[in-house]
Amino acid sequence: MPDTHDILLLQGGARTQFAMIPLNLLTPGAVGDYALTGVWARAAYDEAVLVGKAHIAADTREADGSYRRVPRSSELVLDPAAAYLHICSNNTVYGTQWAEYPDTGDVPLIADMTSDIMSRAVDVSRFGMIYAAAQKNLGPSGVVAVIIRKDLIERSRQDIPTIWRYSIHAKNASLYYTPTTFAVAMMRHVLEHAVAIGGISAIETTNREKARRLYAALDARPEYYRLPAAVDSRSLMNVTFFLPTTDDDKRFLAESERRGMVGLKGHRTAGGIRASIYNWVSLADVDALVELITEFGR
Amino acid sequence: MPDTHDILLLQGGARTQFAMIPLNLLTPGAVGDYALTGVWARAAYDEAVLVGKAHIAADTREADGSYRRVPRSSELVLDPAAAYLHICSNNTVYGTQWAEYPDTGDVPLIADMTSDIMSRAVDVSRFGMIYAAAQKNLGPSGVVAVIIRKDLIERSRQDIPTIWRYSIHAKNASLYYTPTTFAVAMMRHVLEHAVAIGGISAIETTNREKARRLYAALDARPEYYRLPAAVDSRSLMNVTFFLPTTDDDKRFLAESERRGMVGLKGHRTAGGIRASIYNWVSLADVDALVELITEFGR
Repeated sequence: MPDTHDILLLQGGARTQFAMIPLNLLTPGAVGDYALTGVWARAAYDEAVLVGKAHIAADTREADGSYRRVPRSSELVLDPAAAYLHICSNNTVYGTQWAEYPDTGDVPLIADMTSDIMSRAVDVSRFGMIYAAAQKNLGPSGVVAVIIRKDLIERSRQDIPTIWRYSIHAKNASLYYTPTTFAVAMMRHVLEHAVAIGGISAIETTNREKARRLYAALDARPEYYRLPAAVDSRSLMNVTFFLPTTDDDKRFLAESERRGMVGLKGHRTAGGIRASIYNWVSLADVDALVELITEFGR
Repeated sequence: MPDTHDILLLQGGARTQFAMIPLNLLTPGAVGDYALTGVWARAAYDEAVLVGKAHIAADTREADGSYRRVPRSSELVLDPAAAYLHICSNNTVYGTQWAEYPDTGDVPLIADMTSDIMSRAVDVSRFGMIYAAAQKNLGPSGVVAVIIRKDLIERSRQDIPTIWRYSIHAKNASLYYTPTTFAVAMMRHVLEHAVAIGGISAIETTNREKARRLYAALDARPEYYRLPAAVDSRSLMNVTFFLPTTDDDKRFLAESERRGMVGLKGHRTAGGIRASIYNWVSLADVDALVELITEFGR
């Protein structure tokens, strides 16, 4: 961690940050820039509009309402008064992810990493702020980790309620209010475990192999499996795909449940199948799904 | 529970509500009324001032900065535009509590019951809103229970961030964001246990007996123990007292620790001794402290 940044452990989750970010950082005249790449990225934008002035830097929504990719850096159009660019690092519903983060020059880059924090190495110094609700890769729900550049804390608004000020939480080492103690304690255990198994580089190696095996199994049967995500936007955390018909999807889900796999049904707004392979899903778990994919594809 | 009210289980704690209450209920022209009876009651007022217009309906602070009692109903001066009167039901730092809640006529009464919810029977229908962070009587930290009158939800502001709207959480049965699942699950166990041991009336009987024994032991030695709280404002949850000198306080604390008692030191701003006898402190625990008080007083 660069000492230019502070880590805060706050009550709540990602949605709390959707509101706290513009509340703190949209000082008079400033604009919040948002790249829209899925339902959560859009939800963050929708909240900012209620707080201050927000601008859409890019929107990859397609005619059918879905999102298949993240934008290229060249597609981003920032507002001249941008206080930050907000992106959602991994889009759980559509199975897309930023493979490389955009270069935003002097504009602080803010990333919601709720669904991919600690899944791969990240150069923290490139970010104005990174935040992640705990419940995917870090621990139980109820706490959100915020890594924020100290100069952004200093620049933030001081006329808002104290509990929503980053500056108050930084000054009080996240103890201004009673923290979500159980979730924080569990997060500590998860982090110690992460270090014990070799740290982020080991976790990243396993995660890349998990995703490689799943995508390889699906790509091997292109006439049977349809993958909505563009290849260069494919997520390492959520692998989404469709079988030829929705009846096939249902049969696949029924068979997966018979084999003890849970949660493979796609998000209700997207349909199809979604394999969430967060940090603590093992290679063996993935292999069991690869086997099912291969059998079904025959 | 009257069906005029909704129960919400929200992320965060009491401080979250200090900000959400004025944010939701201070519609244009409305004023938030506050009875100041301690540091937490004052913190709620301080937050309201940052959100909208707030008015002090009563302030029982004494010249030395401490609070020894809650106001009488006749002392409350409400603003003609009052949207609510906010009180802190039990003041943990000073060991005072509202024995009876004030009659506020048409003005909704809002009570922070963080430190005394479920400790005694309460007529919910008399309140516009009751709220309580879980970590005293209900379960682990990270969740706050909000009991709110439905017409107040309907009347509340809709132009604020969605996550801070009571209306959104009511409409989504508190699942608009990921709840603090562990704390909510534990709260369920605590509530089931409360029912199993006879419900609130049994709990209240025990709590009153716990407080009676402690105050009786202290009152029996008035030349040795000084009780700052006015008799009619004495708390059933936090019994505060001073020994003749601060050195005596220290000796008392050392001996209490030797006997396996923890957390008896008074709040750093108040000094002295504070016995917190929340719901799950047993009569036997209290008797051990009574014994120590009696021995020391000789």
